[in-house]
Amino acid sequence: MDLFDNIGPLDYRYYGRNEKEFEKLKPFLSENARINYQLKVELALIKTLAKRGICSDDVVKEVEEAVKKVTAKEVYEEEDRIRHDIRSLANSIRNKVSDKAKPFVHFTSTSFDIVNTAEALRFKEFSEVLIETMKELEKTLIEMARREKDTVQIGRTHGQHGDPITFGFAIAEYVSRFGNCIKKVKDANLVGKFSGAVGAYNASSLFFDDPEEFEKEILGELGLKPATHSTQITEPEYTLDFIHSIVSGFGVIANLADDMRNLQRSEIAEIGEAFEAKQVGSSTMPHKRNPINFENVKSMWKQFMPRINTVYMDQISEHQRDLTNSASSRFIPELLAGFYLSIKRLNKTMAKMSVDKDNLQKNFDINKEMVLAEAIYIILAAHNHPDAHEYVRELTLESQKTGKPPRELLNEDPDMKQFLDKFTDKQKEIINSPEKYIGIASEKTVKVCNFWEKELKL
Amino acid sequence: MDLFDNIGPLDYRYYGRNEKEFEKLKPFLSENARINYQLKVELALIKTLAKRGICSDDVVKEVEEAVKKVTAKEVYEEEDRIRHDIRSLANSIRNKVSDKAKPFVHFTSTSFDIVNTAEALRFKEFSEVLIETMKELEKTLIEMARREKDTVQIGRTHGQHGDPITFGFAIAEYVSRFGNCIKKVKDANLVGKFSGAVGAYNASSLFFDDPEEFEKEILGELGLKPATHSTQITEPEYTLDFIHSIVSGFGVIANLADDMRNLQRSEIAEIGEAFEAKQVGSSTMPHKRNPINFENVKSMWKQFMPRINTVYMDQISEHQRDLTNSASSRFIPELLAGFYLSIKRLNKTMAKMSVDKDNLQKNFDINKEMVLAEAIYIILAAHNHPDAHEYVRELTLESQKTGKPPRELLNEDPDMKQFLDKFTDKQKEIINSPEKYIGIASEKTVKVCNFWEKELKL
Amino acid sequence: MDLFDNIGPLDYRYYGRNEKEFEKLKPFLSENARINYQLKVELALIKTLAKRGICSDDVVKEVEEAVKKVTAKEVYEEEDRIRHDIRSLANSIRNKVSDKAKPFVHFTSTSFDIVNTAEALRFKEFSEVLIETMKELEKTLIEMARREKDTVQIGRTHGQHGDPITFGFAIAEYVSRFGNCIKKVKDANLVGKFSGAVGAYNASSLFFDDPEEFEKEILGELGLKPATHSTQITEPEYTLDFIHSIVSGFGVIANLADDMRNLQRSEIAEIGEAFEAKQVGSSTMPHKRNPINFENVKSMWKQFMPRINTVYMDQISEHQRDLTNSASSRFIPELLAGFYLSIKRLNKTMAKMSVDKDNLQKNFDINKEMVLAEAIYIILAAHNHPDAHEYVRELTLESQKTGKPPRELLNEDPDMKQFLDKFTDKQKEIINSPEKYIGIASEKTVKVCNFWEKELKL
Amino acid sequence: MDLFDNIGPLDYRYYGRNEKEFEKLKPFLSENARINYQLKVELALIKTLAKRGICSDDVVKEVEEAVKKVTAKEVYEEEDRIRHDIRSLANSIRNKVSDKAKPFVHFTSTSFDIVNTAEALRFKEFSEVLIETMKELEKTLIEMARREKDTVQIGRTHGQHGDPITFGFAIAEYVSRFGNCIKKVKDANLVGKFSGAVGAYNASSLFFDDPEEFEKEILGELGLKPATHSTQITEPEYTLDFIHSIVSGFGVIANLADDMRNLQRSEIAEIGEAFEAKQVGSSTMPHKRNPINFENVKSMWKQFMPRINTVYMDQISEHQRDLTNSASSRFIPELLAGFYLSIKRLNKTMAKMSVDKDNLQKNFDINKEMVLAEAIYIILAAHNHPDAHEYVRELTLESQKTGKPPRELLNEDPDMKQFLDKFTDKQKEIINSPEKYIGIASEKTVKVCNFWEKELKL
Repeated sequence: MDLFDNIGPLDYRYYGRNEKEFEKLKPFLSENARINYQLKVELALIKTLAKRGICSDDVVKEVEEAVKKVTAKEVYEEEDRIRHDIRSLANSIRNKVSDKAKPFVHFTSTSFDIVNTAEALRFKEFSEVLIETMKELEKTLIEMARREKDTVQIGRTHGQHGDPITFGFAIAEYVSRFGNCIKKVKDANLVGKFSGAVGAYNASSLFFDDPEEFEKEILGELGLKPATHSTQITEPEYTLDFIHSIVSGFGVIANLADDMRNLQRSEIAEIGEAFEAKQVGSSTMPHKRNPINFENVKSMWKQFMPRINTVYMDQISEHQRDLTNSASSRFIPELLAGFYLSIKRLNKTMAKMSVDKDNLQKNFDINKEMVLAEAIYIILAAHNHPDAHEYVRELTLESQKTGKPPRELLNEDPDMKQFLDKFTDKQKEIINSPEKYIGIASEKTVKVCNFWEKELKL
Repeated sequence: MDLFDNIGPLDYRYYGRNEKEFEKLKPFLSENARINYQLKVELALIKTLAKRGICSDDVVKEVEEAVKKVTAKEVYEEEDRIRHDIRSLANSIRNKVSDKAKPFVHFTSTSFDIVNTAEALRFKEFSEVLIETMKELEKTLIEMARREKDTVQIGRTHGQHGDPITFGFAIAEYVSRFGNCIKKVKDANLVGKFSGAVGAYNASSLFFDDPEEFEKEILGELGLKPATHSTQITEPEYTLDFIHSIVSGFGVIANLADDMRNLQRSEIAEIGEAFEAKQVGSSTMPHKRNPINFENVKSMWKQFMPRINTVYMDQISEHQRDLTNSASSRFIPELLAGFYLSIKRLNKTMAKMSVDKDNLQKNFDINKEMVLAEAIYIILAAHNHPDAHEYVRELTLESQKTGKPPRELLNEDPDMKQFLDKFTDKQKEIINSPEKYIGIASEKTVKVCNFWEKELKL
Repeated sequence: MDLFDNIGPLDYRYYGRNEKEFEKLKPFLSENARINYQLKVELALIKTLAKRGICSDDVVKEVEEAVKKVTAKEVYEEEDRIRHDIRSLANSIRNKVSDKAKPFVHFTSTSFDIVNTAEALRFKEFSEVLIETMKELEKTLIEMARREKDTVQIGRTHGQHGDPITFGFAIAEYVSRFGNCIKKVKDANLVGKFSGAVGAYNASSLFFDDPEEFEKEILGELGLKPATHSTQITEPEYTLDFIHSIVSGFGVIANLADDMRNLQRSEIAEIGEAFEAKQVGSSTMPHKRNPINFENVKSMWKQFMPRINTVYMDQISEHQRDLTNSASSRFIPELLAGFYLSIKRLNKTMAKMSVDKDNLQKNFDINKEMVLAEAIYIILAAHNHPDAHEYVRELTLESQKTGKPPRELLNEDPDMKQFLDKFTDKQKEIINSPEKYIGIASEKTVKVCNFWEKELKL
Repeated sequence: MDLFDNIGPLDYRYYGRNEKEFEKLKPFLSENARINYQLKVELALIKTLAKRGICSDDVVKEVEEAVKKVTAKEVYEEEDRIRHDIRSLANSIRNKVSDKAKPFVHFTSTSFDIVNTAEALRFKEFSEVLIETMKELEKTLIEMARREKDTVQIGRTHGQHGDPITFGFAIAEYVSRFGNCIKKVKDANLVGKFSGAVGAYNASSLFFDDPEEFEKEILGELGLKPATHSTQITEPEYTLDFIHSIVSGFGVIANLADDMRNLQRSEIAEIGEAFEAKQVGSSTMPHKRNPINFENVKSMWKQFMPRINTVYMDQISEHQRDLTNSASSRFIPELLAGFYLSIKRLNKTMAKMSVDKDNLQKNFDINKEMVLAEAIYIILAAHNHPDAHEYVRELTLESQKTGKPPRELLNEDPDMKQFLDKFTDKQKEIINSPEKYIGIASEKTVKVCNFWEKELKL
């Protein structure tokens, strides 16, 4: 197949062409992976049967050899014939073993014992790759936060200059939020099942007095646990919670990308995406340096976030199950790949991003006198000015009219002397040096970084 | 590339393996198609330049030959080098023409003049394929509606038996709703643009006094019209409305699939998906006949419907454009393919579906006496019974207790004689033969079918 | 009831406290309105019955008087008793008329004949109010676009300075997009129905040979038309398309609000929300002037846009209807109110918004030399420079290094003389005066304004 | 205000008219509640200031008295004047205290210190009410599951009869899934903040060396903890995770309601909503018994589920915050109320729901011979039949043709004798008594009920 005959952008563009990521994701998220994991589950079943003496160790060996040889292509060809995917999988194994072994393939299990368990397993194992990748971004952010912990930046609320912070502190926000997301992904509880066609262990209880034990043993072979209850499928909330952890993490990196994108605006220009020597910024405006990687991350979020609606809708499955969640849940790997690739891209971009201290200073200077307004108001209030907020509000209006800094107007106001006399040294210092009015931005940055390094064992 | 190394189910399963549909969709929805359409737009630009005497006809010929040879692979390799997709496209053409022709390639245009116009064009041309496919389903439905126009079926509201209809009438609902959807897709207004990097025709007005005319001429070459205004991009609502027409059509077929799925329930069994000789219904329950195709259509709807949220979010693009709608909009072909494939599947399934008249009758018989309750109540009211609804409500409770049909209780009630005497013959006939209480179900069915056949020229 | 005991912000905050808007919306969107419209539909039925001679004109008069007196409170009290909303409505009328008139109330109709028709009617009539309000915003935008048609502004793509435009041109984008939205709302096709409990006119055909005519007559009384087919309900796509027109219009104003919000950033400051004398910007930062109204519009969009998912889900209704769309569709008036109130707020804000020409100029100046890069590249290309884009890209890199404007570097480059000699006067003028490189921004602005004034008869 | 002048269905219909629920929800979810909680937070601040010696205990007493008297009405009137909600709140308190106390009101805090903390607190306290309500439903389900643990029901997958279960087992699914949801709501981590306008404790660090301790003390007064990092707002993921727990719980009850709705279908009729003596089923079909409460729950889910998209979008807030999440987040109480009311309704409906054992048996009998197919196939396989699945598949086709049960065909097949001889007694018993082929449905039901009773201390 020609890669560019594909319809899906992940396949032809973001994953399929990126050799390194292709090799990383293929073992978990491709259709070959899906089938490989199903084969692993079928094998775990056989092993358990042998442990229980239902079949011999020879059967295990036969099946072990067989599953190595089964290919997606052959399973699909069998499906073309019989129109049932998991029966085709079973047949593909059966065709490779002796008549003696045949009956034990897929023994007592229903399709979704295999499918659900295999999905839980591959998502769980993929999670480990994902978490490593998330940690890489977390480390990049921590490094940047530490490096810029004392770099004064004007804080912004409503897009307006507010109180000062440091750029490291701004990054620490994402260290913390993304740290929490990593924890959520780590805490994901993906479970399997071997409870049969309607969840009541109908078939397995024909042979075992303890079918729930039997289920636990099979899943134990794979490092999984069973759901607290299942029908034909595991309770959908396990997958949903996992996807929620993914989508909420996606929201965090989209916010980070958005912030950087805005800080790169021509008029702000506090940071910039690195630009390669041969890179073209625009097909007609050669001077442009566009935040294309930040834009890409936001855009991928817009594509993938709404897909959680599918998972919320798939919570509803009639009785012991209807199959309207079958095709839809096949698309989950796309969401995982989209998130993974966006983290990778963002990490690379953040690691090379330039921070422009001149522009940080320049922007800070615009309103440095005005941002002290808050400090003045509060200190006045602390010294018992009965209406400090209103007083300062008028002070700033006056300042806008006259061009004089509020602190000068304050100093010149004879009514204020009684209050100014009470100001502590630290208070005096701050209302005369706006860049010191950063609260505990630096200390908090360090604290957040330390916390997450320890929490996540980075 | 191994097909099964793909992540996207459309690519490896629903489109990529279905040879017939693959050939049908590839020319419009693959990445090769995307690039082919962009080449068409670049060529239309050159042709217009030649018509205006900016370049010679030889340049047109050169470019015409060049675009035939450009491949997606080569454009992507150039993009690896310079990191700009449309500049890479332009370079790929330029590399194949003489120095004389080079300057005119992409002349005065911005990337999104090409991208937006090419997308509008391929979606528009794909629409024609889509509409043909929609019409095929419409024809299947019309045929079924006509065939079953007199087949009495119990009408259902709240999942409860209500007034009788015919099965053809039930299908006519979808003839009508899907007919309206076909009209919406036909009415889609997909537009192009050649107004440059910010929409003000900055570049083209350096050479032309009538840059809007120039834009119209290029688009005219392609059978397109310009937007009423554009920035770097066309107004996003054109695409949004088109996608809305797709997604609302998807909702209609999902509803149809859902209805059929429910009518196939073991206890209802009024219809059934055809089953192939070798088909396996369940990996462990060999007797099962599952509505897998109807389930698939519903499931695909659950996957694709939420994606319109991306398009609603992509309405918001900052100033003359930010690029957070770039990656996200690359996924639109998936939605189109998902809809197309679901229609195809549903059409095939409906065409072979069996209708079980015995079960239709059996279900109708369950409540046939009770469903006359409405008729009785209304006729009584028409003959001036002052509280007919309440009277009949109590009649039905009595009937449930005694097992006697309401009409017998009615006939036995001496207080009712004064009303019964006034009943017309038709009214008497109907309250004694529930299967005649179908209103104008048959006539309406025919009318709906006739209307849509004419409206859509089927 | 205490207003602040409400849970819904619309009720206690945005609608309920705004006396003017309260009076405007109450007649259409409140629960009292809902019931009033249902009463109108019941009356239209009676009138049609009288025209057909089924009941006398006296009955019409009785019902006419009765419906004036029915209150929501009384209908709800009846519903408490009998647990059926429309039966309660009918009973509330019946309780106010003579025994002679009683049987004709609600005669032959099913609940949703009343509910669907009443909803279509009130949404249609509300649309007129909505369209007037939309037109007011459109007029404000046109006025601003005309006024600022020549005010040069730097165009922005990716948040980066691109080609110049005018501020009027930037506003013209919204004149055009919102104009298209107004048209969509005007074209909304809201239909009623009187086809009975399952859509087959079962009850009405007991009395009329032409039940579809009967339906048309009732709806005609109200200025409505019937759906092409109905079950217990009208085809859901009529409402869906209407809501789509609302939500896509909401996206347009959200984008406008977002653009203004960004232009009000401290570093950009090209526009500003007007600020009232007593207004407090921040509880602790008295100097701040926050774009709270623009933020509110964006925020309301975030609240209401996702609700269209409910309407897409409500397309699916089993068989002749299930009632899982009943409670959900009761919330539609909230969406309409949210949109209306956001337009009102935006209009008021835009009308008073200040445009800061100094800052527009200041921002323009930052990159005025660089933005000519595009013009230079294209003119060079037109004069047969074989690799103009790459040449100019390097020129801009050189310019960034040396601080010299690209045009100076160009003029100094001896290799370029051959090309420069061929530049036309207009071309020379533009590459030496960036503020003239605005294409046809002014003319296009006027053209767009003229077009929409005429199209919408403003 | 007339209740029916409201626009929001919650206000005028589901909450506002339901006296009992109104009193239950008002203290947490109304606007009065919102303001009361904000007052609590302002008071906690004052108390902490006093503990630290910043103000006297008299100030605490003054503010304590003041907050008792502040009304929503007065705060809103102040907001009309100064256009800032939290400043209005502060002013409303200040107006009620002495000049001495005035400066300490709202001291060092920013609006969202109050708003975020108050929201966390009221949602947390409301959670306790919610959890009690969830537990009531859980108890109802457990009771039903236990009662019906041995009631045989045909299991259904794809809407088709599959293996048998018991009705109690079907309910146990929801005991388990809803149990997990209760746990998630209990585990919600709602946090407050007192870190000032941009999160760096700028103002509070003017007075305290340990501003984070100061924050902890205030929040400690309220039983809350601070976020690991905050800007002007707490990290949005805390609220998002809470809402996710709500929405995923909503999905579970929607699924339960949907299952019951389907089991109430006329043809299935295994369960039924209780019906009151005076209740009207349909305005025209008096005999109907509609599952209106189950439908309502599903419908409310359709209304409220999509609203989580707003919360996902609200994750993105620019820099130290933009306010586009302000209006949108005001609607969260609606979602909480919608969930609460749906649980209440469902609990009431489930508690009175009738279970029709005759119909359960009747439906079971339809396919009782066929459902043994799975058992036969597996036992044959276990006894080394090399192609048992295919053999049984053909057996069922034969059975459908001849009308003979598969087990009879099996017994008559001479080739099968060798296998039948090996069947254990239990195996023989089961293939001759389908109602015993229920696996461990009963035991599992009890186990699930026991587990959740203990886990949730019911």
